[in-house]
Amino acid sequence: MNVLVIGANGQVGQNIVNLLHDSEQHSVKAMVRKEEQAAELSNRGIESVVASLEDTVEEIISAMNSSDAVIFAAGSGGSTGSDKTLLVDLDGAVKTMEAAEKLGIKRYVMLSALQAHNREKWNEALLPYYAAKHYADKNLEASSLDYTIVRPGGLLNEAGTGQVAIAENLERGSVPREDVAKVIVAVLSIDHSIRRSFDLISGDKSIETAISSI
Amino acid sequence: MNVLVIGANGQVGQNIVNLLHDSEQHSVKAMVRKEEQAAELSNRGIESVVASLEDTVEEIISAMNSSDAVIFAAGSGGSTGSDKTLLVDLDGAVKTMEAAEKLGIKRYVMLSALQAHNREKWNEALLPYYAAKHYADKNLEASSLDYTIVRPGGLLNEAGTGQVAIAENLERGSVPREDVAKVIVAVLSIDHSIRRSFDLISGDKSIETAISSI
Repeated sequence: MNVLVIGANGQVGQNIVNLLHDSEQHSVKAMVRKEEQAAELSNRGIESVVASLEDTVEEIISAMNSSDAVIFAAGSGGSTGSDKTLLVDLDGAVKTMEAAEKLGIKRYVMLSALQAHNREKWNEALLPYYAAKHYADKNLEASSLDYTIVRPGGLLNEAGTGQVAIAENLERGSVPREDVAKVIVAVLSIDHSIRRSFDLISGDKSIETAISSI
Repeated sequence: MNVLVIGANGQVGQNIVNLLHDSEQHSVKAMVRKEEQAAELSNRGIESVVASLEDTVEEIISAMNSSDAVIFAAGSGGSTGSDKTLLVDLDGAVKTMEAAEKLGIKRYVMLSALQAHNREKWNEALLPYYAAKHYADKNLEASSLDYTIVRPGGLLNEAGTGQVAIAENLERGSVPREDVAKVIVAVLSIDHSIRRSFDLISGDKSIETAISSI
């Protein structure tokens, strides 16, 4: 599949782009916000497109064109205000869903956050972020897309182990960003993951085994 | 009907409470955030309940109990940040929908904003507010509730005329808060308004005639 990675310059996004670039099955187009990020990717032989989630749906459609699947790994991050949380993590995400639907792209994988579907479990210090992710996910579940929503626990920079725990509801836990990226790329080839949403932390099962259990 | 007004201390909310209090058909319970607001309402013979949209759904259920209809006229306002826009105007609103559904209250009237359903028309200076209203409305339309979404143009403090224009899409315009309140109270008795959303500005039709045209 030709896969568009939105938020390709983020920490999980970079891992996803690298996995797709090395893959035999997929090709990757990295959506980034800055020309210099695109130039750097180009130097590494990776296709890219410059676009922002604050652009119009029409502009996002142009960026998404000719893709077979979309991975949403973008986030406005902790250094901007809640206005960007609303306009990027929520409305920006929904714009990409609308763009995918308009283009007839069915497959859409969302990087969400542990327990984003469960208001009682939201991290008190990050309520606006969780609210934005919650409503983005809810919008995706109400869409016509073949979605998978991956909700990882605390993201770590240590090397991945490929051993995970996956379930509809998991207690607090953490997981290396590399393993999150592996799960997100793996689900592209696992039809059983379509129209499913799950929490993800480090565990003792292979990714394939863990996903087949849901 | 016993009508719960959420955001009863707001400028439109106060108008709604007064209309319901004077009405023969309805009784009103005013939901406010502060004890002193409740005391002031009590002095005027108006029932009230103290609750916040940042409370849990269970606490909102307690506040909503024994109501036959809900009017949502709350807003976090311009003096707080976009974190409150997300947590009050969006997530707080959705909590009240969940509470209504859990209580089996079907009738729900939302005070929204002109063209909130149409991203291209959002006021550039108020994008986070429009995004929050958009997703609150979208959530309501996807709910099982008998909703009416009233999307007024620029709100004026001048006296109402009772003459309005109502349509699915209207160009920019304004409308007195008193007329917005009159429309919101009127739709409670107009079944034709159930599961409908419309823009509202001042015009040349009576409220009943204008609503019957949609």
